[in-house]
Amino acid sequence: MRGIVAFYLTYLLCLILGITCVALVAHWNYSYRGGFAWDGSVKQFNWHPVFMVTGMLVLYGNAAVVYRIPLTWGHNKLPWKLLHAGLLLLSFILSVLGLCAVFDYHNANHTANLYSLHSWVGICTTALFTAQWVMGFTAFLLPCTPMTARGLVKPAHVWMGGIILVLSIVSCISGINEKLFFALKGNTNGTLPYAALPPEAITANSLGVIIVAFGLVVLKILSNQIWQRPEEASYEVGIYQPLGYDGS
Amino acid sequence: MRGIVAFYLTYLLCLILGITCVALVAHWNYSYRGGFAWDGSVKQFNWHPVFMVTGMLVLYGNAAVVYRIPLTWGHNKLPWKLLHAGLLLLSFILSVLGLCAVFDYHNANHTANLYSLHSWVGICTTALFTAQWVMGFTAFLLPCTPMTARGLVKPAHVWMGGIILVLSIVSCISGINEKLFFALKGNTNGTLPYAALPPEAITANSLGVIIVAFGLVVLKILSNQIWQRPEEASYEVGIYQPLGYDGS
Repeated sequence: MRGIVAFYLTYLLCLILGITCVALVAHWNYSYRGGFAWDGSVKQFNWHPVFMVTGMLVLYGNAAVVYRIPLTWGHNKLPWKLLHAGLLLLSFILSVLGLCAVFDYHNANHTANLYSLHSWVGICTTALFTAQWVMGFTAFLLPCTPMTARGLVKPAHVWMGGIILVLSIVSCISGINEKLFFALKGNTNGTLPYAALPPEAITANSLGVIIVAFGLVVLKILSNQIWQRPEEASYEVGIYQPLGYDGS
Repeated sequence: MRGIVAFYLTYLLCLILGITCVALVAHWNYSYRGGFAWDGSVKQFNWHPVFMVTGMLVLYGNAAVVYRIPLTWGHNKLPWKLLHAGLLLLSFILSVLGLCAVFDYHNANHTANLYSLHSWVGICTTALFTAQWVMGFTAFLLPCTPMTARGLVKPAHVWMGGIILVLSIVSCISGINEKLFFALKGNTNGTLPYAALPPEAITANSLGVIIVAFGLVVLKILSNQIWQRPEEASYEVGIYQPLGYDGS
């Protein structure tokens, strides 16, 4: 019982931090970066952080912890599998839109794509996420997949899920840091310099700190064995197949 | 037996990636950034990435996996505890030197300290690392600490260890990304721009990718239950105290 109360308190913190991330990234880009459009201007670029933080981080993190919610521990796992896969599909669609926003903006302004370390880590994260979704769908939702194959794939699926979240945090923090150096140049573009910590810098730095906090709370939920779905209590270690595993 | 062979292969990969990180960060700063000095110039700044990557990431990661090496699974844990604490102390000293390098450089050049998101995450990582080392020393090396206290502290110590590594990766990647935008400005300072991916950009981006790979291999070693010290096989989950735990 104490474990369940502790879970729901941690999950509440996860939800609050996630909502705060979405609100802060939208506020930053709306109030300080000129808002949103889909016209090749910097207003199109502004969708990039909003979609990536919302999709690749907040929705992704919430989808990852679905099976840890005690409410979902019934005999029929299928509805929760569909919720898990559906949230991740939505997360994937937002991530692709986020990538389209930045590629379109770069192309419209004759800027090179995929040169920064942020972009290298980010594109690898998206590629791994894509492979993970396809592998997860094939292994766990296609009825024709043999149970033994599910058992073999699952530890890798669970481990990769956590790793993609870590890479997502790395991508978000390096991207926000990069954007603030681009945007807050001091006299060159009429803003206060980043080094003077104007309100925009405080806002976006705080967003970064809350992103890290959100990620760590999700990783805590994922790594805590007593919060695992009872029949899968040895999965997060990534190796063992639990006794009595039914292949679901 | 298969588990031990797989461990040593993974550990070898960890060592190779770690050595490559140190070699690449030194090569980048020596060959492209003008080398090293301790005189308040940018040559002093160059120690910052070298010390942080070597100390906070590579030494730290290697210290974290010491107990996973089957060679260390004897009855007397004390020598390995001293190696773990000693490597982490060296890692801490290098990290402090790395921070001194950047603070001195900023102060000598009248640049603000601790304004970027990279610096916020980095300083939090160092603060957590300091707290973790002090807590670890107090709990596990001071003979007067009661066994029950050790048992209570250990899950948090193990979990925090992994989290500090994640934060260290985030700090390294955001820092390298930031430095490359500062250093490769194109016509402004006579370099090729970062967007043209000159050899320096390829070198430092590759360093970033190898840092991520190193971090993921260390996290894999830490999270794999069959590679844990036998009597502690439920520690990484951060909650359970294993049966027969002797407080060591």
